[in-house]
Amino acid sequence: MEKFELHILGSGSALPTTRHFPTSQVVNLRDKLFMIDCGEGAQLQFRKSRLKFSRLNRIFISHLHGDHCFGLPGLISTLNLLGRTADLHIHSPKGLEELLTPMLAFFNHQMTYKIFFHAFETKEAALIYEDRSLTVTTIPLRHRMPCCGFLFAEKPRPNHILRDMIDFYQVPVYELNRIKNGADYVTPEGEVIPNARLTRPSAAPRRYAYCSDTIYLPSITEQIKGVDLLFHEATFAEDAAPRAKETFHTTASQAAQIARDAEVKKLLIGHFSARYDDEQVLLEEARPVFPNTQLAKETLCISV
Amino acid sequence: MEKFELHILGSGSALPTTRHFPTSQVVNLRDKLFMIDCGEGAQLQFRKSRLKFSRLNRIFISHLHGDHCFGLPGLISTLNLLGRTADLHIHSPKGLEELLTPMLAFFNHQMTYKIFFHAFETKEAALIYEDRSLTVTTIPLRHRMPCCGFLFAEKPRPNHILRDMIDFYQVPVYELNRIKNGADYVTPEGEVIPNARLTRPSAAPRRYAYCSDTIYLPSITEQIKGVDLLFHEATFAEDAAPRAKETFHTTASQAAQIARDAEVKKLLIGHFSARYDDEQVLLEEARPVFPNTQLAKETLCISV
Repeated sequence: MEKFELHILGSGSALPTTRHFPTSQVVNLRDKLFMIDCGEGAQLQFRKSRLKFSRLNRIFISHLHGDHCFGLPGLISTLNLLGRTADLHIHSPKGLEELLTPMLAFFNHQMTYKIFFHAFETKEAALIYEDRSLTVTTIPLRHRMPCCGFLFAEKPRPNHILRDMIDFYQVPVYELNRIKNGADYVTPEGEVIPNARLTRPSAAPRRYAYCSDTIYLPSITEQIKGVDLLFHEATFAEDAAPRAKETFHTTASQAAQIARDAEVKKLLIGHFSARYDDEQVLLEEARPVFPNTQLAKETLCISV
Repeated sequence: MEKFELHILGSGSALPTTRHFPTSQVVNLRDKLFMIDCGEGAQLQFRKSRLKFSRLNRIFISHLHGDHCFGLPGLISTLNLLGRTADLHIHSPKGLEELLTPMLAFFNHQMTYKIFFHAFETKEAALIYEDRSLTVTTIPLRHRMPCCGFLFAEKPRPNHILRDMIDFYQVPVYELNRIKNGADYVTPEGEVIPNARLTRPSAAPRRYAYCSDTIYLPSITEQIKGVDLLFHEATFAEDAAPRAKETFHTTASQAAQIARDAEVKKLLIGHFSARYDDEQVLLEEARPVFPNTQLAKETLCISV
């Protein structure tokens, strides 16, 4: 199966602790790297996770709070020092370009590469990126400022050719691409060989949903229904539920309810408040609601 | 002896490595904390060094390269989240206020405290801070942009009263402060008791000099003559001496020459290039020139 991995660079929230970096993740799909959020120190954690800067393709910023984007000036400067030439695309709610441009102009006199800022609307889900193997769609969230999660969806892959059957029916090579993509084969004699006899289906396309930061928002379950992996913020434990609501965050058991209701395969929780010296309490509150829950932690790599 | 300690928060240079943070240090003088440079992740390392944010007094930025100041937005935001009320003073070459102000305004809607920016000239040494126990003076350096190091000098402390002699001469209490500060005592009979009979000198005032980033610059030896502790950048080893010169940095043996010529008591080297997996090579080049050399490293705490 082709690589589709999630790297956690930081799983803390705004206040620094001795154990966590602020939010940042990297999705590795077939060795193309996509960064989600870029808290302070993301570039250090990127190195610590043994990822290659040259593979970094795009950056998606969920919202413009410092703990989700203060790592950008350092990362962008480092890519420049390394002599990057490939374009860098940064997707975010509007406002980021205006904030970063004067800083980047001052700190990087000569840029070796170009940065393209793409601002997305945060009210409705929108396809914001697409390539041969992937789509990225925003997941509108509710936080103290405009904020979206991201749904990373692999595109369906071509069926696998059954070599024996191809030989048996003497299918010419130029027909193979059509057949991989689902076409039946018609023999010179006019006989229709159904696609199902010539191929076996490839693995189902995989999906990863990232949801942070947000108040408990049951309306997202429809969009993330059945994803292979859900990252959901779980800033607080249940005894701080009022605080969670007030600050537009989610508790661990609420995150688990989302996972259960959306029937996801696996839940990863993170964005932990600095008040928890040990996040086991959050895990213990989530698992009774959704057993297949795991705690995010720095340098964790998980297969989607 | 009263506390005068140096904490290393980061000892790397611009490119991230798995072992170092970019430059940041904290001077702890009698539990007042002064930060020197504030590279990305400084606030994380501050916590890791078990320092108290509430004790942070002032920040001194040597020059406006990203690896010396990209930690400021995060640190300033954290102090705001923590509800700081005390003023924060930031000293730097000119330009920082204009760069940071729009960012801070966006990311911190309501500031709980005030920030005062103080721009210093970088051509000549200048006293930029003074309180009851300390002076901070700039040390003009030569780098690719305006840059200064900092000389932290304790003020001379009052002499220690010799209690037995005070009793013997029946010195009244209201005379003690004058005597601590060096005055002789005149008895009611007109006899002059020299200060030296009534007191013993306090320990000599201590000095710490921070010199980074700079090309090898022998002219600084005069200003840092005999300091108790010198931090000097040693970005490169001797085989990269041309590269050091070209990028306005110093080699380890050049840093040691500065220490030897300035007759300092102890040398600490840092600002290591990312090319060294192990800085032992730098130490081995410095020690033959100046034996009392030590490598800086993260969370090191050293008494001045």
